Amino acid sequence: MSHQEICYMTASELSRRIRARDVSVKEVMEAHLAQIERVNPKVNAIVTLLPELAIEQAAAADEALARGESTAALHGLPIAHKDLFETQGIRTTFGSPIYKDFVPDEDALIVERLKTAGAITIGKTNTPEFGAGAQTFNAVFGETLNPYDTSKTCGGSSGGAAAALACRMLPIADGSDMGGSLRIPGNFCNVVGFRTSHGRVPIWPNLTGWFPITVQGPMARTVQDAALVLSAIAGPDSRSPIAIAEPGGRFARPLERDFTGARIAWGHDLGGLPMDARVTNTINSQRRVFEDLGCVVEDGEPDFTDADEVFKIWRAWRFELAFNGLLKTHRGQLKETIVWNIEEGKKLGGPQIGWAELKQTEIFHRVRKFMDTYEFLILPVNQVPPFDVTQRYVTEIGRVKMETYIDWMKSCYYVTVTGLPAISVPCGFTPEGLPVGVQILGRHQDDFGVLQLAHAFEQATGIWKRIPSIAK
Amino acid sequence: MSHQEICYMTASELSRRIRARDVSVKEVMEAHLAQIERVNPKVNAIVTLLPELAIEQAAAADEALARGESTAALHGLPIAHKDLFETQGIRTTFGSPIYKDFVPDEDALIVERLKTAGAITIGKTNTPEFGAGAQTFNAVFGETLNPYDTSKTCGGSSGGAAAALACRMLPIADGSDMGGSLRIPGNFCNVVGFRTSHGRVPIWPNLTGWFPITVQGPMARTVQDAALVLSAIAGPDSRSPIAIAEPGGRFARPLERDFTGARIAWGHDLGGLPMDARVTNTINSQRRVFEDLGCVVEDGEPDFTDADEVFKIWRAWRFELAFNGLLKTHRGQLKETIVWNIEEGKKLGGPQIGWAELKQTEIFHRVRKFMDTYEFLILPVNQVPPFDVTQRYVTEIGRVKMETYIDWMKSCYYVTVTGLPAISVPCGFTPEGLPVGVQILGRHQDDFGVLQLAHAFEQATGIWKRIPSIAK
Repeated sequence: MSHQEICYMTASELSRRIRARDVSVKEVMEAHLAQIERVNPKVNAIVTLLPELAIEQAAAADEALARGESTAALHGLPIAHKDLFETQGIRTTFGSPIYKDFVPDEDALIVERLKTAGAITIGKTNTPEFGAGAQTFNAVFGETLNPYDTSKTCGGSSGGAAAALACRMLPIADGSDMGGSLRIPGNFCNVVGFRTSHGRVPIWPNLTGWFPITVQGPMARTVQDAALVLSAIAGPDSRSPIAIAEPGGRFARPLERDFTGARIAWGHDLGGLPMDARVTNTINSQRRVFEDLGCVVEDGEPDFTDADEVFKIWRAWRFELAFNGLLKTHRGQLKETIVWNIEEGKKLGGPQIGWAELKQTEIFHRVRKFMDTYEFLILPVNQVPPFDVTQRYVTEIGRVKMETYIDWMKSCYYVTVTGLPAISVPCGFTPEGLPVGVQILGRHQDDFGVLQLAHAFEQATGIWKRIPSIAK
Repeated sequence: MSHQEICYMTASELSRRIRARDVSVKEVMEAHLAQIERVNPKVNAIVTLLPELAIEQAAAADEALARGESTAALHGLPIAHKDLFETQGIRTTFGSPIYKDFVPDEDALIVERLKTAGAITIGKTNTPEFGAGAQTFNAVFGETLNPYDTSKTCGGSSGGAAAALACRMLPIADGSDMGGSLRIPGNFCNVVGFRTSHGRVPIWPNLTGWFPITVQGPMARTVQDAALVLSAIAGPDSRSPIAIAEPGGRFARPLERDFTGARIAWGHDLGGLPMDARVTNTINSQRRVFEDLGCVVEDGEPDFTDADEVFKIWRAWRFELAFNGLLKTHRGQLKETIVWNIEEGKKLGGPQIGWAELKQTEIFHRVRKFMDTYEFLILPVNQVPPFDVTQRYVTEIGRVKMETYIDWMKSCYYVTVTGLPAISVPCGFTPEGLPVGVQILGRHQDDFGVLQLAHAFEQATGIWKRIPSIAK
């Protein structure tokens, strides 16, 4: 099997071939390392690489297979972890110069689970400083570029992961999402990013045990592959007080479903957000695909009033909590947008936090009632296509000025506030060839339903198959 | 069957007899109404009573049984709901003169579930104003007295429920618990109050969907009866974003278990809290019961550092959120302790809320590690036995001055902060005949295990059977 054949294969197929011993784990590893060596310099997606360690583990994985051991779901699949996730003995910078030489003693839970499931760590993927902002650049490693147009950003904060997947340098990846960090890079790089339900993927370590506007989840090129990864990282763990009890294994079941009669709300602009017509046109052109699946598609979206302010309060609160200590000791080494977020957090009053919880509860109930009528909700992922990598964030959309560095991410972070599971799945390309995804939301904790609809859509469109020319 | 036989029976036994048609629901209802008429004036536990409606529903329940319908768990059992729970068409005062004539349009979820399970509402049980404080008195209905000594308080805030159960005026009841409101009245009235895990009993309506230091749960005379009630009120509901998915039905399974070798930590004073010797002596005298069950009992308790401040922050935050509006419009009709709690909430800074979440997460992990070694933790429920009803709260314990109206409840609210399920179960009496319970905590979300151990303890001791003389 050629390197190209291996790297172009889906993770699910690769996993089958490894088990069938059609291909050795070592060959799989060598193919991906060769692809990384060839393509990574063009995008800067993988920022820490451990080829010797990976080859060594691949050999061990082959031996385990030869002995008839190891039936774990991800056995032998190469992975690189988001550089926000602690990896035991492997440098974890959080994209910050303050931590440029930090080597953790323990794996984050998600890393531990991926290892347990047989995935082999080959390195770390790039992320903005502390994951702040949806443009992947930092003072340690620089920018990660969009594989479809290297003058553009790959999005973020799980940007390195998305670019690496698109470039066929990795078959699977991981990420996290507060305001869109799994969905935005998925959207900008023609891959899949799944913001799972709160507690679906238990988070540890975690400063804040109960209130997770941040979730973790899978990234992959196909929905089936994302489900495969989710089956390994979902499920309860005693280290998370809010972990959903359902075992991860349920996500390994077949995703096929008959969607005849399924009711879908087709949202346009989340209550009047400015939209780039290239995004809107691309998404609208695929509406008939959902209809062809048998879905009943109707225009509509819930009322997102107050979602903006609720998100901004929680975000500032979380930044103050996590980084105010660093602001005191390392102010000069924090980027300005993070300093701003911390300063906003310091200004918060306790009653404002109460207001945010109250309003988020109201939004939860409004959305719940809306979703009594509709099983799914379709929304744009972002209001704009990938933008110039020299631009740190979007400052204007359709002549509407953005007031902060996160304002352009509203179509993602309004969804965060609802708590609903939301996947970004490839939907098409703009006339200039930039990827556009679509955001599919399901009912409270119905992560499986979301995967099923996204899978059916992907099977019908096959857009994910378009490989960036730099990766060929 | 005599009225006395009916009223002295456990709910589980009563339920069996109703199904077997040994006794009609109407007879059950008449017996309890007679007991209420005779005994309630001595304790003032049931503050709204609807005898005609109850008799009417009892007749309908008998007809359903005659038709072979209705196998619901609580079919025909009389219940009165805590006056903090909205009851459709039935006055719900929250113990506040502001709401003295308030009649809700909808049932709270817990009430809806109890009705669905076949329980028949006969009225409402007393509670302090808005449930604040663990002494049941308010300006609408006055004090509820302790059935074992009517010069003492019954505790609170689910005080009316506990006193009504002890007086055999109700076979089952419901309650809620922020800082001990299910456990304290259980403790003071020789009945069972179970603070369930967050999300075990979904709460609706609820201003704050995600962060529930308040939980709801069952009250009963026996652990088996509390489990029966829990089987009806536990289980997921789409109106609560944090509801645990496990169906309530699992709590209807037999509670018997062999405890040989089960490891129990025996806590004394939660890190040096002042303790009344009468409480300590009563609890220590029962240690051998756990040993006789086969448990390995060792002295020990987790480190509760910061639990006090964490609880006080969350409590003040929640009071400000819920009641600051009333403070503006009805200040003169709010009791001073509530005004104080709201004012404390207004002073909070956002970063303090962050600190509380951070420290609570640390406590969660400390307790988790402690509970890796021990399956259960035994603690006093309160530091004092029931006190004079003329006293609004405890101001001093063992010469240690209490600084606020809630300080005397620390042995309960430290447990709140851990998030662990915790039951108060009858343990003995002081030399002067005042009830003392014991608090049994289990591992994260192991509500069933807690019920099992409490049941075994109760079977061995039978303390719950001591009926207050005023009820005879």
